[in-house]
Amino acid sequence: MLSFLSRMPSLHPESRLLIVWEALIVLVTLYNCFTIPFRMAFNATISDNWFSLDGLADLILIIDIFLRFHIGYMKEGEVIKDKNQISQHYRNTDFKSNVIASLPLDTLVYLFLPKASLILIGLCRIPRLLRFPQCFLIFRKWENNVYFNSAVIRMFELFFIVFLIDHWIACLWFFIGNSTGQSGESWLQSNNLHLENTTTQYLYSFYWSITTLTTIGYGDITPQNNIELIFTFVVMFVGVSLYAFVIGNVAAVISNLDANKNRFRDKLGQVQAYMWERKIPPSLQKNVLDYYQYMWEYNRDVSLDFYLLDELPNSLKTKIYCYLYQELLSKVPIFQNAEPCFIEDLVMKLKPRILPPYDYVIREDQIGHEMYFVKRGQLQAFSEKTGKVYTVMMAGSFFGEIALLYDSRRTASVKTLTYCELFVLYKEDFDKVLENYPQFSAKVKEIAQQRYQMRD
Amino acid sequence: MLSFLSRMPSLHPESRLLIVWEALIVLVTLYNCFTIPFRMAFNATISDNWFSLDGLADLILIIDIFLRFHIGYMKEGEVIKDKNQISQHYRNTDFKSNVIASLPLDTLVYLFLPKASLILIGLCRIPRLLRFPQCFLIFRKWENNVYFNSAVIRMFELFFIVFLIDHWIACLWFFIGNSTGQSGESWLQSNNLHLENTTTQYLYSFYWSITTLTTIGYGDITPQNNIELIFTFVVMFVGVSLYAFVIGNVAAVISNLDANKNRFRDKLGQVQAYMWERKIPPSLQKNVLDYYQYMWEYNRDVSLDFYLLDELPNSLKTKIYCYLYQELLSKVPIFQNAEPCFIEDLVMKLKPRILPPYDYVIREDQIGHEMYFVKRGQLQAFSEKTGKVYTVMMAGSFFGEIALLYDSRRTASVKTLTYCELFVLYKEDFDKVLENYPQFSAKVKEIAQQRYQMRD
Amino acid sequence: MLSFLSRMPSLHPESRLLIVWEALIVLVTLYNCFTIPFRMAFNATISDNWFSLDGLADLILIIDIFLRFHIGYMKEGEVIKDKNQISQHYRNTDFKSNVIASLPLDTLVYLFLPKASLILIGLCRIPRLLRFPQCFLIFRKWENNVYFNSAVIRMFELFFIVFLIDHWIACLWFFIGNSTGQSGESWLQSNNLHLENTTTQYLYSFYWSITTLTTIGYGDITPQNNIELIFTFVVMFVGVSLYAFVIGNVAAVISNLDANKNRFRDKLGQVQAYMWERKIPPSLQKNVLDYYQYMWEYNRDVSLDFYLLDELPNSLKTKIYCYLYQELLSKVPIFQNAEPCFIEDLVMKLKPRILPPYDYVIREDQIGHEMYFVKRGQLQAFSEKTGKVYTVMMAGSFFGEIALLYDSRRTASVKTLTYCELFVLYKEDFDKVLENYPQFSAKVKEIAQQRYQMRD
Amino acid sequence: MLSFLSRMPSLHPESRLLIVWEALIVLVTLYNCFTIPFRMAFNATISDNWFSLDGLADLILIIDIFLRFHIGYMKEGEVIKDKNQISQHYRNTDFKSNVIASLPLDTLVYLFLPKASLILIGLCRIPRLLRFPQCFLIFRKWENNVYFNSAVIRMFELFFIVFLIDHWIACLWFFIGNSTGQSGESWLQSNNLHLENTTTQYLYSFYWSITTLTTIGYGDITPQNNIELIFTFVVMFVGVSLYAFVIGNVAAVISNLDANKNRFRDKLGQVQAYMWERKIPPSLQKNVLDYYQYMWEYNRDVSLDFYLLDELPNSLKTKIYCYLYQELLSKVPIFQNAEPCFIEDLVMKLKPRILPPYDYVIREDQIGHEMYFVKRGQLQAFSEKTGKVYTVMMAGSFFGEIALLYDSRRTASVKTLTYCELFVLYKEDFDKVLENYPQFSAKVKEIAQQRYQMRD
Repeated sequence: MLSFLSRMPSLHPESRLLIVWEALIVLVTLYNCFTIPFRMAFNATISDNWFSLDGLADLILIIDIFLRFHIGYMKEGEVIKDKNQISQHYRNTDFKSNVIASLPLDTLVYLFLPKASLILIGLCRIPRLLRFPQCFLIFRKWENNVYFNSAVIRMFELFFIVFLIDHWIACLWFFIGNSTGQSGESWLQSNNLHLENTTTQYLYSFYWSITTLTTIGYGDITPQNNIELIFTFVVMFVGVSLYAFVIGNVAAVISNLDANKNRFRDKLGQVQAYMWERKIPPSLQKNVLDYYQYMWEYNRDVSLDFYLLDELPNSLKTKIYCYLYQELLSKVPIFQNAEPCFIEDLVMKLKPRILPPYDYVIREDQIGHEMYFVKRGQLQAFSEKTGKVYTVMMAGSFFGEIALLYDSRRTASVKTLTYCELFVLYKEDFDKVLENYPQFSAKVKEIAQQRYQMRD
Repeated sequence: MLSFLSRMPSLHPESRLLIVWEALIVLVTLYNCFTIPFRMAFNATISDNWFSLDGLADLILIIDIFLRFHIGYMKEGEVIKDKNQISQHYRNTDFKSNVIASLPLDTLVYLFLPKASLILIGLCRIPRLLRFPQCFLIFRKWENNVYFNSAVIRMFELFFIVFLIDHWIACLWFFIGNSTGQSGESWLQSNNLHLENTTTQYLYSFYWSITTLTTIGYGDITPQNNIELIFTFVVMFVGVSLYAFVIGNVAAVISNLDANKNRFRDKLGQVQAYMWERKIPPSLQKNVLDYYQYMWEYNRDVSLDFYLLDELPNSLKTKIYCYLYQELLSKVPIFQNAEPCFIEDLVMKLKPRILPPYDYVIREDQIGHEMYFVKRGQLQAFSEKTGKVYTVMMAGSFFGEIALLYDSRRTASVKTLTYCELFVLYKEDFDKVLENYPQFSAKVKEIAQQRYQMRD
Repeated sequence: MLSFLSRMPSLHPESRLLIVWEALIVLVTLYNCFTIPFRMAFNATISDNWFSLDGLADLILIIDIFLRFHIGYMKEGEVIKDKNQISQHYRNTDFKSNVIASLPLDTLVYLFLPKASLILIGLCRIPRLLRFPQCFLIFRKWENNVYFNSAVIRMFELFFIVFLIDHWIACLWFFIGNSTGQSGESWLQSNNLHLENTTTQYLYSFYWSITTLTTIGYGDITPQNNIELIFTFVVMFVGVSLYAFVIGNVAAVISNLDANKNRFRDKLGQVQAYMWERKIPPSLQKNVLDYYQYMWEYNRDVSLDFYLLDELPNSLKTKIYCYLYQELLSKVPIFQNAEPCFIEDLVMKLKPRILPPYDYVIREDQIGHEMYFVKRGQLQAFSEKTGKVYTVMMAGSFFGEIALLYDSRRTASVKTLTYCELFVLYKEDFDKVLENYPQFSAKVKEIAQQRYQMRD
Repeated sequence: MLSFLSRMPSLHPESRLLIVWEALIVLVTLYNCFTIPFRMAFNATISDNWFSLDGLADLILIIDIFLRFHIGYMKEGEVIKDKNQISQHYRNTDFKSNVIASLPLDTLVYLFLPKASLILIGLCRIPRLLRFPQCFLIFRKWENNVYFNSAVIRMFELFFIVFLIDHWIACLWFFIGNSTGQSGESWLQSNNLHLENTTTQYLYSFYWSITTLTTIGYGDITPQNNIELIFTFVVMFVGVSLYAFVIGNVAAVISNLDANKNRFRDKLGQVQAYMWERKIPPSLQKNVLDYYQYMWEYNRDVSLDFYLLDELPNSLKTKIYCYLYQELLSKVPIFQNAEPCFIEDLVMKLKPRILPPYDYVIREDQIGHEMYFVKRGQLQAFSEKTGKVYTVMMAGSFFGEIALLYDSRRTASVKTLTYCELFVLYKEDFDKVLENYPQFSAKVKEIAQQRYQMRD
């Protein structure tokens, strides 16, 4: 196997195969975090096959050590896949703790002292818990994975923590009850649990642990001696705060899930309150609310666009804008033969505008300074004098492009028929981009002039 | 009835009639969500007329299916009322789940097996719960209704959720207690409730449920066997978090109710603290606090105006401003013959200004650049030299209009006598608007000149 | 007395005398809110003198009705003291409810049916509770009083609410226990409280109420029958949320008390974290932290100044600035003979600047454009070439005033010796103000020239 | 010793030696706050050596009084070390309360009445508690210490408060139980604790205290008489709110610990949600997330830089920028002979820019207006026409410096190979700085011209 491993190519740290393996590591660590304290506290195993399960878990951790020599790592945003570098990096970081975590002390004890108590075997397995911090690194990595929902990962992680806190306190609580119960009264005796089977004992320990941490405190199980009292203090002091803190984090994750929705709802509430106070007539109120409703359903929060993307470097911003809006521009005849660079620059200049039904976009005879692209909705181009409808425009249409070329009066009015999302391109911006493309500049004027004469 | 339905015109999705029907659907769903788990857990009914009530509830759901073919729906902000489109839209969305939810399995069982247990009938009615998500859509729709207070709807919705969580946990808790009680000790036995009547049993189940979820945890009813322990864990783990989350939402709704008030109170606190630290004399402090007080009572938060309305498209903004301020402008003689368009443009340029008593608005002999409209309060025009009072102006008055026409020195000082709300129109803005109305521009100058000569 | 009242002058609504009276009204209302439910639930009185106490309380309320015809009210920020207007205003608002609240039904019952139970008398006094909302108006008024700390008033108000909620629930709890106890087992019987004296019974009722509302839930007193169970549900459902909400408000008030301090601490934490991450040398870190420390101790949050005052109308802003900074300016010889108006305008142009020790303010031979006023700290004027120290300046000093008159090179360097607070007046701003005071403009130049020649 | 003290030099208030002494004072105060109430409530001591411990604690407080005459204090940001001033300052502030706190009343009682009860001795030591507020001043001082982590100090302080609240309530609870137990039933009797030893009694008192304050409320120890009931009300009313408030502060401190991390995580969540909604292709999503990841790992939150430092006075800002970036500039040949002043001014003009791999920084033949300094990452200078790679640049490199001198076309394209952090210096900013250094201005041009000819 070793020779196979040495010939194995190094893996990308974000390859999908690795995710399954990482899930396995998390599972094994969870198994160890669960069984080791349980075994030490209850002097019992969770299954008769515990020895095979232990062996399997240990094997996975050992394979992981070999595997880690073949998994690339990130350095300054780059993947390092060179085996020597990987090996050196691993040796300098987790290698030693991983090897210590995998020392088969428990197997040795079990083989040479077959009658050793489970407590001793549990003790020998304690180094396995060194793998615990690795779980959080894995969770962190999953959170940043493009294909995973980071909220789900985070919820799972917090659930994992809460469960382990509960479990550890339950194990300690039983351990204290059991130890102090031999020389006096303990919570086990006072609840007649000292003769019950392990399952019931564990359930009652866990029950006390969760009842206390959630501050429900039924009070059917209470500390009976001084050591139990002191342990109870610590759990109440530290545990309750910790629990509340973790649950607070869960609440934050849930409320972030629809933070946008809540912010929108708050804003709508303010708008409604404002309009009620000023006694705006209901029909106008309805128009305003409908507008916000439309905005929410089709755009979530447009303002986010600019806020979020502004932080990105230019090259990434361009790629995103191009993906979203390039199609709109490529349909315009005057841009058809343009270089891709030109279109990219132009895309960055588009500004969104959302209009309610029956709103004027441009008016006949006014001087225009911008052109429009229709992303969604229907518009009507018509003559205000004669009332004649020239055309109805849909998604993908564009109009007013002559305004980009020279100052001319609009030849028609354009009115929205439904809610419309438009993109505006101002002459000013167009000219700025055109400056950098002199050979294209001439061509554009020529095409536009043809088009202009056609319409007349 | 079918032929009547086919001839029935399609309803607007926001018609008032529909709201009553939607309330009925919510009621029926609440009935089902309440009775079905209750019947299955307690093997009992809430009333002797349960069969008629069930039938009535089912009938309403069936009628709803027919009705839904006649209720328009919103698409991209437009109402679709065409019956073919409605029918197709409904078929593609909720039709199937609504039909399944209305399958009369329970009636069939009841008719063919009159002695079937209530548990079986309850099981047959489970598909009714498919209607549950529809309730939230209805709540969502009501929240956006102009005539409803969204906070009340939201409170009702959250109460609805909290009650159902409590009820379901109560039913499950009794079911577990009853099942495990047959082969051993359960919470029912240990509290001597296994022989009580159903009402008392239900009340105690509900009592345990709410005591645990609110983390009060009296501890008079506690789990007595392993299955009850495990169920208790789940309720404590999930239920408590969920409950806290819902109650947190209720708190948010309540505190949003007077969020404005609270923000104002906070600001006032800051101002007070600031003035105390700088040892501003009490009389001046009082002036400042009075000003804020006035602002609050008559304007809530003026700054909201601009913040909220800025997001709206121009056409809606204009409508709101016109509704609020047009009256003020229409009284000014020089604007009397103006086109509505001109007034609309002008309204958008008004800027509010609130002044405390005895504050100068304009001073004699200074060159003016703006005119004022009085919205509330009293002002005095007087000569500073002679002390002669020319006139006292009230709501609806305006002054300084000559400043819009040419740069002239003010012919009088104007001082506030009470708190005043004014709107300012700057010459700059006026000129910008006037540019678009050349024929009116000439007329304005003429009228103003007449007025100016009159006063001298 | 009536004739005295009719001749009594009307009181200012914010006169100090009134505050004592309002405190009395709050006390009486608190007395009524406490005793009426208590009497009805426990069929007992809190004191043997209850009849005299009731009478006194009623008398105060009756006097208040007469008094209210003589207390002015605020309308649009103005005090209305005209008796006719006051009378009309009072009749239209609280008069009717106040009269109903004072109907002496209980006295009539007591006089004609001396053996009537206390419960009946309690019932007759229920209208007294109509005065309850008035308390909140009084609290609101006190919160806005310049001489009171609004946080203290708010705390008192919230304490008042919490106590009454607790008390009312306690009374209801006893009432239910007592009523149901006559026909079966109630919480009183099961805790052997039905034979105890009223004090103990009340304390246990209150104890249950507060134990439940705070979610502590000891569980020594639990509901024993269906009516008690249902009442417990309601308390848990509504009461617990309400209680948490009120306590949340208390927490908000407390944390607002030193909101500034907390915000400062947060910012300091960020700065510290930032500097640690960049590994800024400790001595430089210390300089930065010292600076923030100084800022905090002597200025709290300077940025507040501008943020808060910007909202005020000009006239109030000027008054505050004048109070704070006028003294600094009046010492400058060139401003000594200026009109107050001029100084007021100038004060508005001052800009604060805070400097650490050993920082240069102006440097020799550079061209100056501003003058400085020293508010706190010490500075040294010296020659960089010869090292000669010209003068040490303290609070109240000023320098660089020649820069306001003509562009000249600085004749000396000025360096801070300690932390210093300066105010800067830029030539630009000075010129703008001077424009409006032509006659003063000439004088200023003259004085300055004399001073300039003196120093050379 | 007094003569030694009088010759002792005065200490700096922030010297490290003092911190140890302050820790001792905190310890002594904690000792007093713990033992005095304990002794009075339990009529017992925590140790047999209590008299020596008391003596030691008192001695330390007395030495502190003498020492305080030699510890400088801060005034307006300056350290005052003059002994007369220190003495006067101390006399005016804490001297009196410190002397009263150290009065050896308890020793006198113990010496003259050796059989006096511990309660009396406890009473005599109550003035020691006057030192309590001093602890908070010490904590405040430590929080602002450059070498300490303010979050740790704050946590310790809050833990200190919570522990003392718990302890004091426990002592009072026992005291009440013990006093009322002599004339009737108390919580001690009903739990069979009145005959237990002091340790067990204290543990149970503390147990009740913490169980109640955390709202867990097991209910195994409950009030048994009216005085206990009333004390329980007060603890529930005030204590629970106080406890929740303090724990809330702890939560705030913890969540501030990684506030930056959380803010980053939230932003990442928003970006992810945004991209999912717009259906951006996964590979582009990955690029964007990688960019944010890089930003976080190497820069935390760059935007903080400018936000935080903007508030600082110029001199401190310059020092920080110089420390961070001066090295980059000093390598550039054209700046080598510049005055330090010039470099300092230039450093303030640098603007950071972070780029993803394979992004163009400058392009051949375009006219450049800025130069670049490489802080991290690799870049390639190459010819776009021939594809020839001129050079690979690393951290510490710089390019485009000719653009600072005259408008010239770039002679090569520069592309990032990895993530890169650059600093940009614009010609505009450079020229502005150069204006103030005329003699250097000539030299710069000369050097640059040589360099320019070399490359060609």
